[in-house]
Amino acid sequence: MKVVLLGSGNVSTHLGNALKTSGHEILQVWSRNLNNARELALKLNTTATDSYTAITSAAELYIISVSDDAISAIADNLQVKNKIAIHTSGTTGMEVLEKASDRIGVFYPLQTFSKAKPVDFITIPISVEGNTEEVKNILLKLGNQLSNKVIEMDSVQRRTLHVAAVIAGNFSNHLFTLAKQLLNNHQLDFDLIRPLIAETAAKIQTINPLEAQTGPAVRNDKKTIEKHLELLQNDFKLKQFYQLFTESIITTHNSP
Amino acid sequence: MKVVLLGSGNVSTHLGNALKTSGHEILQVWSRNLNNARELALKLNTTATDSYTAITSAAELYIISVSDDAISAIADNLQVKNKIAIHTSGTTGMEVLEKASDRIGVFYPLQTFSKAKPVDFITIPISVEGNTEEVKNILLKLGNQLSNKVIEMDSVQRRTLHVAAVIAGNFSNHLFTLAKQLLNNHQLDFDLIRPLIAETAAKIQTINPLEAQTGPAVRNDKKTIEKHLELLQNDFKLKQFYQLFTESIITTHNSP
Repeated sequence: MKVVLLGSGNVSTHLGNALKTSGHEILQVWSRNLNNARELALKLNTTATDSYTAITSAAELYIISVSDDAISAIADNLQVKNKIAIHTSGTTGMEVLEKASDRIGVFYPLQTFSKAKPVDFITIPISVEGNTEEVKNILLKLGNQLSNKVIEMDSVQRRTLHVAAVIAGNFSNHLFTLAKQLLNNHQLDFDLIRPLIAETAAKIQTINPLEAQTGPAVRNDKKTIEKHLELLQNDFKLKQFYQLFTESIITTHNSP
Repeated sequence: MKVVLLGSGNVSTHLGNALKTSGHEILQVWSRNLNNARELALKLNTTATDSYTAITSAAELYIISVSDDAISAIADNLQVKNKIAIHTSGTTGMEVLEKASDRIGVFYPLQTFSKAKPVDFITIPISVEGNTEEVKNILLKLGNQLSNKVIEMDSVQRRTLHVAAVIAGNFSNHLFTLAKQLLNNHQLDFDLIRPLIAETAAKIQTINPLEAQTGPAVRNDKKTIEKHLELLQNDFKLKQFYQLFTESIITTHNSP
């Protein structure tokens, strides 16, 4: 397909690369920041623009990959009536695209992207929604070229998936940050727990996290919990986290 | 070395295996539950007992690997004055072993063990403490046979390391459990976020978790945060987690 990318962030970058690798043609990169558009266009060997009126009408698919707040403004300025316009957001409803075209959809790749680190699209689940059977089928076909896990989902399910991803991905990364701060405050290196973090994630690839739970809370080991809270007594925030998790783990593992 | 294992749980099992593989001799397994002692003894091709008086005095090293609450009672009953007695707890001080012997120490492997899943000891950081230079050096030497990351640490540092491990390992696993429950409540499969969890852990093997942070909170994307909280409005617990993390991420990433 002939594609225009609107946005030049992490998702645009990785999706653009994956589409190009699969044989699709990236006609243009649009961004409100021309330098960013040019940078991505250079990587994808295509043209760049920051003007709505300069957006080519020669493409079949227009992909808006920008922060959630910015999607609707771009969609309102995009006039591609008979073409497919989609966004890649987990949380935004499909309907914000209605002014852009009659053929709209969502194509949400569930992964934590950073520009620096290459990702293997094939393992990334892609959630797809279309306002007509025709659009949906085109997006399913496109998804299956990039990933081996493409699922049709409505907006509520997609938003739920996004929240679950924020909890399991973003929040656990923040726990790593908090743990690193604690270690560094005691002249200990974050390297000490990197293998543990790798093993924790590896474990639940095959078993259920409920069975994988270890630690003082699931054992209801009050002595250890007390000693830990004592160590954290001057760290109000960490103590709050420790208590919330400990109570939640105890409740979760003791309810019938 | 000739070794007696006291305890038959996950740590005893994996440590016993690793010691045997490194050429050490496991003389005996003691557990207050004779069946458990026998089960582990069978795996290690050695003898089992549940009696304190039947513990052999022929070993050089006695390793207590039991829940933190049970260590001191076992140490008080263990009479091995001129032998080395150690425990493997991250949180318990070395001094609880004082009645067992004059040569005491701690040998704390930092990993999440489950009996079913084999672990590669070589990547597991081991924290070592001894009450004399001689004991400490023996434990450092032993540690270096099993792992490529052996560090001397005092009790406060070891406890801090344990708390950091609980936060980064046990607590993130609980986040996976909460995310799974949310997905299942909306007829979505946990498989959808397994790759994301793998990638989140893989990312911080090479970069700092502070730099790796993604998601609506670090972008301070209020619209998305609001939509997520709306989706969680009937789930008091998850909403509490979502708010605490979101506030903490915003604060962490906006402080000077």
